[in-house]
Amino acid sequence: MIGAKIKSIEFSLPKKKENLKELLKDNPLWDIKKIFKTTGIKNRYISNENEDVISLSLKSAKKVLKKFPKNKIDFLIFVTQTSNYKLPSASCVMQNLLGLKTDIKAFDINMGCSGFIYALYLANNIIKNKEGKNGLIICSDVYTKFIKKNNRSCRPIFSDASCSVIISKAKSNSIDNFVFGTDGSGFQDLILKNQSDDIFMNGSRVALFSIKRVPQSIRDLLKKCKIKINQVDKFVFHQASKFVLNKLYEVLNIDRKKIFENYMNYGNTVSASIPIALKMANNKKFLKINDKLVLTGFGVGLSWGSVLLKWKKII
Amino acid sequence: MIGAKIKSIEFSLPKKKENLKELLKDNPLWDIKKIFKTTGIKNRYISNENEDVISLSLKSAKKVLKKFPKNKIDFLIFVTQTSNYKLPSASCVMQNLLGLKTDIKAFDINMGCSGFIYALYLANNIIKNKEGKNGLIICSDVYTKFIKKNNRSCRPIFSDASCSVIISKAKSNSIDNFVFGTDGSGFQDLILKNQSDDIFMNGSRVALFSIKRVPQSIRDLLKKCKIKINQVDKFVFHQASKFVLNKLYEVLNIDRKKIFENYMNYGNTVSASIPIALKMANNKKFLKINDKLVLTGFGVGLSWGSVLLKWKKII
Repeated sequence: MIGAKIKSIEFSLPKKKENLKELLKDNPLWDIKKIFKTTGIKNRYISNENEDVISLSLKSAKKVLKKFPKNKIDFLIFVTQTSNYKLPSASCVMQNLLGLKTDIKAFDINMGCSGFIYALYLANNIIKNKEGKNGLIICSDVYTKFIKKNNRSCRPIFSDASCSVIISKAKSNSIDNFVFGTDGSGFQDLILKNQSDDIFMNGSRVALFSIKRVPQSIRDLLKKCKIKINQVDKFVFHQASKFVLNKLYEVLNIDRKKIFENYMNYGNTVSASIPIALKMANNKKFLKINDKLVLTGFGVGLSWGSVLLKWKKII
Repeated sequence: MIGAKIKSIEFSLPKKKENLKELLKDNPLWDIKKIFKTTGIKNRYISNENEDVISLSLKSAKKVLKKFPKNKIDFLIFVTQTSNYKLPSASCVMQNLLGLKTDIKAFDINMGCSGFIYALYLANNIIKNKEGKNGLIICSDVYTKFIKKNNRSCRPIFSDASCSVIISKAKSNSIDNFVFGTDGSGFQDLILKNQSDDIFMNGSRVALFSIKRVPQSIRDLLKKCKIKINQVDKFVFHQASKFVLNKLYEVLNIDRKKIFENYMNYGNTVSASIPIALKMANNKKFLKINDKLVLTGFGVGLSWGSVLLKWKKII
């Protein structure tokens, strides 16, 4: 049975790192201790005027393409909600900047924190249907460009980043089952209208939604895969915030030794969050070959998705 | 072998229809005869301030869901470049407005004139992989909101619309092979930057690209399907403009009796253009059951895609 696996991951961050002191400097009335207690986030990365979705993506993609021949990339899936252009798609711009071949499938998906799971799903489908052997997924967002300095719910959380991931055909199927869900009744809880330059988030409603929806989605995934939660070796969740993640671990009764987190120093990097965490967890040898891994993305939409995969050696 | 088929199509248009006289009224120096000779377009549909991607989509989707139970929709693919929101995705908003179930896969793809072919491809993959039996594709754009009254290259061409299409599992595979291509070297030839409110199009460069890329893409598709061009019964191309379409028919030596066109009265409706043309061609009994059909989308990106399918009865 033909399958797919994650072959390589590289990421790029803006130059500027912002810490809690800078939040306080701009907003002397904010209770920074209370904010940190909820978010658990110390540092976030903020793109400057020369850094955008395209330039950050170029960096992460060039890194990953140093390890893998670019003429073997058969498809490109670009996940973003804050591209430089309404049109054309960022995937088309990147095809040219990276010098990928022209007989390539290249498309953008406009998704937030569940975006990487969707991209992995669509890539897996393409490979399983023998429509391509190697694909490049790029997840990049610059939410901070649309967050004002006094935006209390968003500024302490969101961080800019780009992550490029190569998905390749594998002899056995290491990427197993997926589960997805959508509840647009909360579409106004995390929103950026076209004319607005400031993202609105009702943080407590997004948190409540996550705690309500994500555990059941993971249970559904495990049921679909016919395994029990204690048979899962590691969990890498979207790095939403300390409060939400701790609640999820609690509800699901997940052993803290099985989780990997990086939000404290990197913030919530939207769709790039899961693959960046995977790369760091791999670098730190937290992930072992053949580990059974559950990845879960959730947030804006509201939208969620989970996958079970076997971790393979990455280059 | 499990396959997919187009089961139903419905579309919606803005109330306001604009003709050549109105172009001339706003731009007395334009050579309207010359413009019409090139575009072949008499009427275009212009969304008013109360009509947008979401409201137009709601109309077309509700029409199609009158014929098909909404609780059987397993996935929703929304194609747009001009949604009401940067975030969340329009697909999430629609899940709620249409009352679709929450255990649904729902995502947006940001693609232009090749968007319907991409959506059909991704839908076909989901059904072939037994990950869903029925999907809703919505293609909607309101380009005219981003075109100024004196925009000589865009205003005579683009038109607003929404088209909703149900794709369902079929006993035999009526949707056969796809061919895609991407050439981002032309990304600036049709572009809308985030800060801009006026789409820029280098019409002659987009036309040249189309004439250069599309015929070879169709030849590649036919080769992949092992059939000759004279074995194709009908051709439904993206309704770009008279000049481009006529050149394509000429280069490919396509019998005019085999083509369906509607650009004269509907303009270029971006990703909605192909499914709207299919619906009209079906209504006019131009399409016969089991006709071998080539659909081709091409444009902004620059991006192109073609598919061969067997036409089936639609409800």
